[in-house]
Amino acid sequence: MQYKFSSLAQNLKASEIRELLKYKNIPGMISLGGGMPHPSSFPVSDIMEITDDLLKREGREILQYGTTEGYEMLRVELSKFLKDTENIDCTKDDIVLSAGSQQALYAISKIMVTPGEEVITESPTYIGTITAFLANGTVMRGVQMDEEGLITELLEEKIKNMLSKGKPPKFIYVIPTFQNPSGRTLSLERRKHLLEIASRYQIPIIEDNPYGELRYSGQKLPSLKSMDTSGLVTYMGTFSKILTPGLRVGFTVAPREVVSKMNLLKQATNLATNTLAEAIAGEYLKRGLVKKNMPRVVQMYREKRDTMLAALSENFGEDATWSHPDGGMFLWLQLDSRINTTKMLPRALENKVAYVSGYSFYPDNPEYNTMRLNFTYADNDQIVTAIERLSKVVGQEAMMAK
Amino acid sequence: MQYKFSSLAQNLKASEIRELLKYKNIPGMISLGGGMPHPSSFPVSDIMEITDDLLKREGREILQYGTTEGYEMLRVELSKFLKDTENIDCTKDDIVLSAGSQQALYAISKIMVTPGEEVITESPTYIGTITAFLANGTVMRGVQMDEEGLITELLEEKIKNMLSKGKPPKFIYVIPTFQNPSGRTLSLERRKHLLEIASRYQIPIIEDNPYGELRYSGQKLPSLKSMDTSGLVTYMGTFSKILTPGLRVGFTVAPREVVSKMNLLKQATNLATNTLAEAIAGEYLKRGLVKKNMPRVVQMYREKRDTMLAALSENFGEDATWSHPDGGMFLWLQLDSRINTTKMLPRALENKVAYVSGYSFYPDNPEYNTMRLNFTYADNDQIVTAIERLSKVVGQEAMMAK
Repeated sequence: MQYKFSSLAQNLKASEIRELLKYKNIPGMISLGGGMPHPSSFPVSDIMEITDDLLKREGREILQYGTTEGYEMLRVELSKFLKDTENIDCTKDDIVLSAGSQQALYAISKIMVTPGEEVITESPTYIGTITAFLANGTVMRGVQMDEEGLITELLEEKIKNMLSKGKPPKFIYVIPTFQNPSGRTLSLERRKHLLEIASRYQIPIIEDNPYGELRYSGQKLPSLKSMDTSGLVTYMGTFSKILTPGLRVGFTVAPREVVSKMNLLKQATNLATNTLAEAIAGEYLKRGLVKKNMPRVVQMYREKRDTMLAALSENFGEDATWSHPDGGMFLWLQLDSRINTTKMLPRALENKVAYVSGYSFYPDNPEYNTMRLNFTYADNDQIVTAIERLSKVVGQEAMMAK
Repeated sequence: MQYKFSSLAQNLKASEIRELLKYKNIPGMISLGGGMPHPSSFPVSDIMEITDDLLKREGREILQYGTTEGYEMLRVELSKFLKDTENIDCTKDDIVLSAGSQQALYAISKIMVTPGEEVITESPTYIGTITAFLANGTVMRGVQMDEEGLITELLEEKIKNMLSKGKPPKFIYVIPTFQNPSGRTLSLERRKHLLEIASRYQIPIIEDNPYGELRYSGQKLPSLKSMDTSGLVTYMGTFSKILTPGLRVGFTVAPREVVSKMNLLKQATNLATNTLAEAIAGEYLKRGLVKKNMPRVVQMYREKRDTMLAALSENFGEDATWSHPDGGMFLWLQLDSRINTTKMLPRALENKVAYVSGYSFYPDNPEYNTMRLNFTYADNDQIVTAIERLSKVVGQEAMMAK
């Protein structure tokens, strides 16, 4: 049998991160590549207790098909949690649950963008977003960032440019806080400017905030959604970083008509999400366990971040620059412009250190001398060793480039 | 903010089943509408024990991000289970797990069919399949059924007709055993004929088998996948009927290149599925609990089926015909051709009985005098009362039609 796939499927490619997984089990390999929480952050015994209670109390209900919107109690608890942590005013009916935030990213592009239409993202941006958008034929235009995040002056230029070509952006997708991959945070001034521009040109904003609760320094900034007075912002979050990623529970807070379209699409793509997982997440919020457990996780990650920053200062010279994230899971390393981090990767793997080359994170116009480093998964001493190995590999590469 | 949705989203419509949910909570309403297992079929205490053991033993692993293919142990156990129950030879690498079989239905259409291309389904067919395929712009052509299932002579005519129009079918989607909505089972002779035709014209078959373990009478027939010698058949199954639907665990056994494309798409749509749920399903198989628990469920559903068949004989005259399913969850009622079951539905709801009108189940060329009746969810006495109410409503409708 000779299979003839759809034009989409013919273009699907495995991501570099996925390919890296092959090397994960080589003895001695230290990976700064993935984006995984540290397993010791998982509140296993809380989850055991909650699951047991839930199955005893309402086993038959939470094992039955759920509604498409998702488990009601979780949506109610989320509306309180979002008011408390992000000053977002919403009710359960403004929320749709998803199988991880990946599903929400796929869905938002699918309902907002007809294949071939264009959207704006930060450049670089989250690789999972690029994958989700590409699977819908969505065309991405990147806007550059600096240490204060997305450069909003360039955003406006980009919009004007797209409008002049008859290709109005269908939305602006941003990760304003501890961005993946850059670790950067959009400043308050720029948040205001972004909203002002979006409002002036009437372009919806998709605010993705998976890392908001992982702040290690600096002052909390308001979410775009909390500053939005005219229904411009769709806000996405996940339990992957405040509970565990294996449960696959994500959520979207959006204007009612967006919620309604997302629910209709969810009917087609997966009918309903996992009620047991949603009930566990709901109960976890209800019992106030995020507040109880996050300080320990934040303390652990803060140390890891500081360890990586110190190791970078120790090992890298003037040719390299890197971001200094106030939170999240990643920092962004920029090397001598002659170094191609994709070509360098096999040598890094030989030296038992893995990273994701920056190339994969660009929505368009990629740069080749950048990489993303994760600091939450490896242990502190592994982080030190990994950065030493990396600097050795980069040093050799720089010698050869000269 | 004025939202402009994608052309797809503008066409998404709520399904009738979804709309029916509104009436679910009216006191005294008996629903034969949904397709839900009876909650007493859920092995709650087994699930409690398994979950507790799993979290104790490997909590940190099963709460972390899973791989895209899905939890390895479950895929290994599934390959044994499928050999045992369906005589399907496969290894873990031939299997991809999905968030319920709904996700697999969406994915198979997305990877095989470029929007506007055509596929063949039974007519009528599962409403969730229609929804999933429509969300990808897949055009469906229906082939009629009789009491032996899909009429394979008509299938060949349809294929020839499509080929002559330059629209070769990308695949043939069938639910050969206890079909949803008709309850019919494809005979052995027709199974052979279907495979012979698919092989001759080199058209892949998608075999959806959610109900295989729910047999109440008659002899087990071989799955198409077990009869396939040339990589024609992609087989789909689910834990929704042998464990619980709330866990959202489905699976697809397919030729390697199809598995590979499905995994790439899964990266884009939801990254990975729920590892906890997959581990629970895996352990459930490993402990041999399907074999232990299903006889009780089968006995319960057999009684419900017999109750409904008896009530139909009791209450309906010569103007109505219905299928006599050997298993599954549904039977199909055909009324006097002057009766429109969609228009009749509000009157049925007034009389506190719900069904899904047949209209929604047709991939093309709908009939209006049919309906699907579910017999697994309501209790036996409710089934009797519901059929009495229904016959009263149909009787009134027939009077008015004269």
